Amino acid sequence: MNALPATIVAALASVLGDGPVPLHEPRLDGNESRYLSDCLASTYVSSVGAYADRFEADLTALTGAKHAVATVNGTSALHIALLLAGVQPGDEVLIPALSFVATANAVRYCGATPHFLDSQKSTLGLDPAAMRSWLSEISTMKSGECVNQTTGRRITAVVPMHAFGHPCDVVGVMEVAADYGLPVVEDAAESLGSLMNGQHTGTFGLLGTLSFNGNKIVTTGGGGAILTNDAHLAQRAKHLTTTAKVPHKWEYTHDEVGYNYRMPNINAALGCAQLEQLDSFIASKRRLYDIYLEALGQVDGVTLFQEPRGSRGNYWLQTLILDTDQADQRDEVLKTLNDNGFMARPAWTLLPSLKPFLDCPSAPLAEAKLLEQTIINVPSSAGLA
Amino acid sequence: MNALPATIVAALASVLGDGPVPLHEPRLDGNESRYLSDCLASTYVSSVGAYADRFEADLTALTGAKHAVATVNGTSALHIALLLAGVQPGDEVLIPALSFVATANAVRYCGATPHFLDSQKSTLGLDPAAMRSWLSEISTMKSGECVNQTTGRRITAVVPMHAFGHPCDVVGVMEVAADYGLPVVEDAAESLGSLMNGQHTGTFGLLGTLSFNGNKIVTTGGGGAILTNDAHLAQRAKHLTTTAKVPHKWEYTHDEVGYNYRMPNINAALGCAQLEQLDSFIASKRRLYDIYLEALGQVDGVTLFQEPRGSRGNYWLQTLILDTDQADQRDEVLKTLNDNGFMARPAWTLLPSLKPFLDCPSAPLAEAKLLEQTIINVPSSAGLA
Repeated sequence: MNALPATIVAALASVLGDGPVPLHEPRLDGNESRYLSDCLASTYVSSVGAYADRFEADLTALTGAKHAVATVNGTSALHIALLLAGVQPGDEVLIPALSFVATANAVRYCGATPHFLDSQKSTLGLDPAAMRSWLSEISTMKSGECVNQTTGRRITAVVPMHAFGHPCDVVGVMEVAADYGLPVVEDAAESLGSLMNGQHTGTFGLLGTLSFNGNKIVTTGGGGAILTNDAHLAQRAKHLTTTAKVPHKWEYTHDEVGYNYRMPNINAALGCAQLEQLDSFIASKRRLYDIYLEALGQVDGVTLFQEPRGSRGNYWLQTLILDTDQADQRDEVLKTLNDNGFMARPAWTLLPSLKPFLDCPSAPLAEAKLLEQTIINVPSSAGLA
Repeated sequence: MNALPATIVAALASVLGDGPVPLHEPRLDGNESRYLSDCLASTYVSSVGAYADRFEADLTALTGAKHAVATVNGTSALHIALLLAGVQPGDEVLIPALSFVATANAVRYCGATPHFLDSQKSTLGLDPAAMRSWLSEISTMKSGECVNQTTGRRITAVVPMHAFGHPCDVVGVMEVAADYGLPVVEDAAESLGSLMNGQHTGTFGLLGTLSFNGNKIVTTGGGGAILTNDAHLAQRAKHLTTTAKVPHKWEYTHDEVGYNYRMPNINAALGCAQLEQLDSFIASKRRLYDIYLEALGQVDGVTLFQEPRGSRGNYWLQTLILDTDQADQRDEVLKTLNDNGFMARPAWTLLPSLKPFLDCPSAPLAEAKLLEQTIINVPSSAGLA
């Protein structure tokens, strides 16, 4: 019998004590209660209010993006960002095969087709070299537009995603994208507070998106945001997320098909309190990484994933990578961990394997498949260390 | 000079005193603060939690619907309800020309085309007789499906909307719909607590939808719900609003294109406290109607809209209707009211007049146009009486 599952459980128990320990739970012991009460007292709990404005200002201060537009969740942020990047029905959008389903769904909401790319072992995100190689093989430039020669469809955007909070090689992706005339929309849903070369993830591309779902490093209950340095795109994002209503003292006129995607003020109040604690959350998660490394460093067959070179990660979810020859142990490790009260999860099922995306184009996915079979996320809440 | 604007202002001032008085503001002085604190303490602020479950149970108890699925807003509820009613890309969906833009946008999100119908003066909602007459003129039945002979597109649903909280003749609409094989999706965004023949609006059709936006009679910050008596549709609604994730202890598998439309628990906590006060809100609004009627009853040129026969309305927004020969006074009345601090609004610009819907099919809209030119909503918050 292979002892790996038991060894990993023992290593985690040495850090976490007895279970149960959730994968990730929010910490809400800052100013959350105070700001919620204040928000109630103001009666502005919905789509307009001081906390929504402050939350956006706080996000620009934190990320360095010139503009932030708060939305009802990360999926809606990505939907609007893709529309603003120019994605149209019938187009294709390049996304990592190894991502949460929202990345692909947002492409579908635009009437476009996700086109899957491989990941990079060193970052868990899009591999620029594989992207370049694939595009050189399957695409052609027509009137300045990148066209998939096989399907005949335009490829109109690429969406690098920073998996589990670890910055991908977004600079490399930007270079390839530029060569093919593709706007970059960064899916930074998981990487609030994560930097690459000192710059915040989500601020490299034309647009970036954040998520504040309950399982994220900072939560607003449900929420997201669009980041951009482009004032016109920011204004368009605000317009599209607020039903495209044309400002008027009383008239109800809307000049395009818009969306009800504005983050309510009550959720933003929660977010303002959470952002105040982000630095301490990240510090705690980075300490947890060190402690896990100490406990797991000598365990054969598994590696604790370290932030990629040049980056400073938020370590949103601590990530174990099984050695390739231990990939067949993944489910047993997951089962043993969960049975022992240490909530653990694998990476997502690769998106092109999901029923709604079976017919979508895909590059070879050697690394993504290997990562799918060897990634295990373990308890990662701020406050565990 | 026509004295109507000044007369109306004087009548409102006799009820409301000096301004400013908003059109509608929420009352949040029940258990809102207590439930929000409790929700924070539970750490369940996001897509799962006891308040979300309770809010849905409270909605079924209140409305009599067998199932309620809480969503992130009313627009998302309507989007999912239309999908579940079977609306497909390329279809047409019958909706009132006189409605908020969300009704038409939700149709567009399905890839379908809104097809506009006229309203009824006595209810402000869809006119069943006009609907029957129009369908007999433009549609034909093919293999049990209703087809628009002009466009060749299938007509696959009808969406009656209960304007300003007043129940439309949903029974009449249901009869016509049945004759044409059309499922009915009720847009009850504005009519929480409103009954027709003793039955709650939103529970007549195959599916109904509610809204809890900040301007509604009850608010969750942002929120909505899908009502249905069909257990399978309710299960499908829950699935589609929660990213279509297939239940599994750790695997991330999604079996169709889903949506991130679940109402966060923190918003549901607010909703539970608000629902406890709905009866008192409605009682206050009905008292306000009586008081406005007393003040405005003798004013020539304007009528206070009364709940349609057979209904009990929530009087969400009090509605003045100018006499037809005073329609040209509408904007002056609006301006005078707003200038004097009594926030007032007209009905929505008719949807087929909005840029994104200019090319959509439409029945003759004689009554809707008249209502658009003569409706003025005046301050209506619970607590004003």
